[in-house]
Amino acid sequence: MALDPVELTSALVRCPSVTPLEAGALELLEKTLSEAGFSCVRVDRNGTPNLFARWGDKAAPRTLGFNGHTDVVPVGDEAVWTVDPFGGEIKDGKLWGRGATDMKSGVAAFVAAACDYTTRNQPDETAIIISITGDEEGDATDGSIALLDYMEEAGEKMSVCLVGEPTCPNTMGEMIKIGRRGSITGYFTAHGTQGHVAYPHQTLNPVPALAKLMSDLSEHCLDQGTEHFDPSNLEVTTFDVGNAATNVVPATAQATVNIRFNDAHSGASLSDWMRAKAKAVSEKTGVAIDVSFQISGESFLTPPGRFVDLVAEAVAKSTGVTPELSTTGGTSDARFIKNHCPVVEFGLVGKTMHKVDEHVEVAHITALKDVYSSLIGDYFA
Amino acid sequence: MALDPVELTSALVRCPSVTPLEAGALELLEKTLSEAGFSCVRVDRNGTPNLFARWGDKAAPRTLGFNGHTDVVPVGDEAVWTVDPFGGEIKDGKLWGRGATDMKSGVAAFVAAACDYTTRNQPDETAIIISITGDEEGDATDGSIALLDYMEEAGEKMSVCLVGEPTCPNTMGEMIKIGRRGSITGYFTAHGTQGHVAYPHQTLNPVPALAKLMSDLSEHCLDQGTEHFDPSNLEVTTFDVGNAATNVVPATAQATVNIRFNDAHSGASLSDWMRAKAKAVSEKTGVAIDVSFQISGESFLTPPGRFVDLVAEAVAKSTGVTPELSTTGGTSDARFIKNHCPVVEFGLVGKTMHKVDEHVEVAHITALKDVYSSLIGDYFA
Ligand SMILES: [Zn+2]
Ligand SMILES: [Zn+2]
Repeated sequence: MALDPVELTSALVRCPSVTPLEAGALELLEKTLSEAGFSCVRVDRNGTPNLFARWGDKAAPRTLGFNGHTDVVPVGDEAVWTVDPFGGEIKDGKLWGRGATDMKSGVAAFVAAACDYTTRNQPDETAIIISITGDEEGDATDGSIALLDYMEEAGEKMSVCLVGEPTCPNTMGEMIKIGRRGSITGYFTAHGTQGHVAYPHQTLNPVPALAKLMSDLSEHCLDQGTEHFDPSNLEVTTFDVGNAATNVVPATAQATVNIRFNDAHSGASLSDWMRAKAKAVSEKTGVAIDVSFQISGESFLTPPGRFVDLVAEAVAKSTGVTPELSTTGGTSDARFIKNHCPVVEFGLVGKTMHKVDEHVEVAHITALKDVYSSLIGDYFA
Repeated sequence: MALDPVELTSALVRCPSVTPLEAGALELLEKTLSEAGFSCVRVDRNGTPNLFARWGDKAAPRTLGFNGHTDVVPVGDEAVWTVDPFGGEIKDGKLWGRGATDMKSGVAAFVAAACDYTTRNQPDETAIIISITGDEEGDATDGSIALLDYMEEAGEKMSVCLVGEPTCPNTMGEMIKIGRRGSITGYFTAHGTQGHVAYPHQTLNPVPALAKLMSDLSEHCLDQGTEHFDPSNLEVTTFDVGNAATNVVPATAQATVNIRFNDAHSGASLSDWMRAKAKAVSEKTGVAIDVSFQISGESFLTPPGRFVDLVAEAVAKSTGVTPELSTTGGTSDARFIKNHCPVVEFGLVGKTMHKVDEHVEVAHITALKDVYSSLIGDYFA
């Protein structure tokens, strides 16, 4: 009998696997996949639970990968929920609970689709790799990265990979993500000379210099967008001095900038640009400005081609919607997988993810499993 | 026998009159002045102790005023002091303690000079008014203002007034203050729309708008200075957002601006200017910016003329230094007195005021009493 992705979602939601807790979720999947013919290995690292599973031969020329996570963000104020956040209850055509959307339903859908295929077919120069992490919502340093490190060492290789994160803003089937923008954060500290406002010649105010820099950075147009990407976007996320005395010129001021950037830039090119802008303001004002950067991810793109077409066709077949090929939104573990193989993301409507009363339409889980089943069949055809 | 201003300073320093405590300081002065022929009235208001004293006739056409304060700022960390902050000890030619400079020596000097004069002369269409407050270092709402309110109600009128605050930056005699700049503080709050940096179209970042406004205000040249004043000066004293999440566009940003301005401006003209600048940025960015203002004082000037000349001559005679006529520095109670009569400030070297081990050179106290004695003699000549 075929595995029911709705029941599997429910069972997974009942595991309270708030990052970094495993809470039985990966154990359940390991058992399920093993029964369907997968070889499973737990690839835990530094307390982060991860599961690697392969069906078919390691050397198979066509290996289809699926990636997802079973960890969930905290419940928050449980009193505000109208359902048990770890109940996995089905009511009004919806399945309720933390992780129902992000992304236990996605994991259940591709595991059910894969098991359907493996229990009915023999591998024929084909393989399926399923990698599931327990740390996507945390700092992700020992999650999908650990799984990819394992694959590298063990000679495991995906030809292509689908990440099952929610990708549709409002309507099931409307969006496939074929890339993501990069993200860089810049930290700026301006150093002046403190003193009394009545004696300005004895002071050097760092605030106007930093304000000018933040204004200059914000007003600059990074680009107009590229073929597959929206324009890059810069936000000043904070600016802080903390000086309560209105008769005192403060000694230092700090600001933080985050840029989500497309394939016209790199973390390095943007670091250079911000450093040069800071230097120019420093030279003009005499205010020293320290800068440091954290690059969370470079932009990447899986250009439209056979794999993207297969995913789009599978979506159109099962949902009746022709999906948009998008590169919008925040980061996901696809930013790690793109270094290994072409990666595409498709999943459910993400509207309630991370919110109170998170839920998913039961019909969407079924449709999603259908999409993944089509993809597997078409990819191996 | 003449009153010794050094002994009187010592006695006043031994009264621990940290704002708003009287601690015996005004009682001592009331006794001293009464013995020298002054009529004294305590003009306490809302817990603030104040002393009013007049010698001569209320209707005298020439009434010379002196104003000062006996309250002092707190000691701070007493362990760091090398002397008893309320000892009034004389050592190495200096008198030590909190208020030694600011301004118990100034009060002692003009009280000694006045008593010298009143015990040797009869009023001849001449009068001396001495007003001393116990709240100059605090918020000053019930200090010199209460004394001036009392004078208004009681029909008491100073023709001119000398404030005995420390006015000399380094050398005794080098600076008379004939006016002060005004001070206005502007409070700005920019309101945007919070959201995730990855979805900029759903957000409106208030930080760049406020940064632009602060940069514009700072770069504007208010004036080049006027005949008796330095250029007006604007400082952004703080800029705060307090958003720790680098992936979130914040909802609001706040900044504070302080302007010390000369007689080319008024609190009203600068409020209008800042409001207009904020409006221009608002209209360009769509970010609403709330503004409010606090005017701590308008600029004022006692133009050079007979009274200023008399003070300058008295200083030159007793110190050998020709004083500069200045309008620099912070605010003082002269900002209230200027509404009542022409006011000039002259006193000691202010270097150690408000600091640990505050002290005054004994010779400077004697010289200061000499300056005030000359002024009284010359003014009534
Ligand atoms: Zn997720
Ligand atoms: Zn003072």
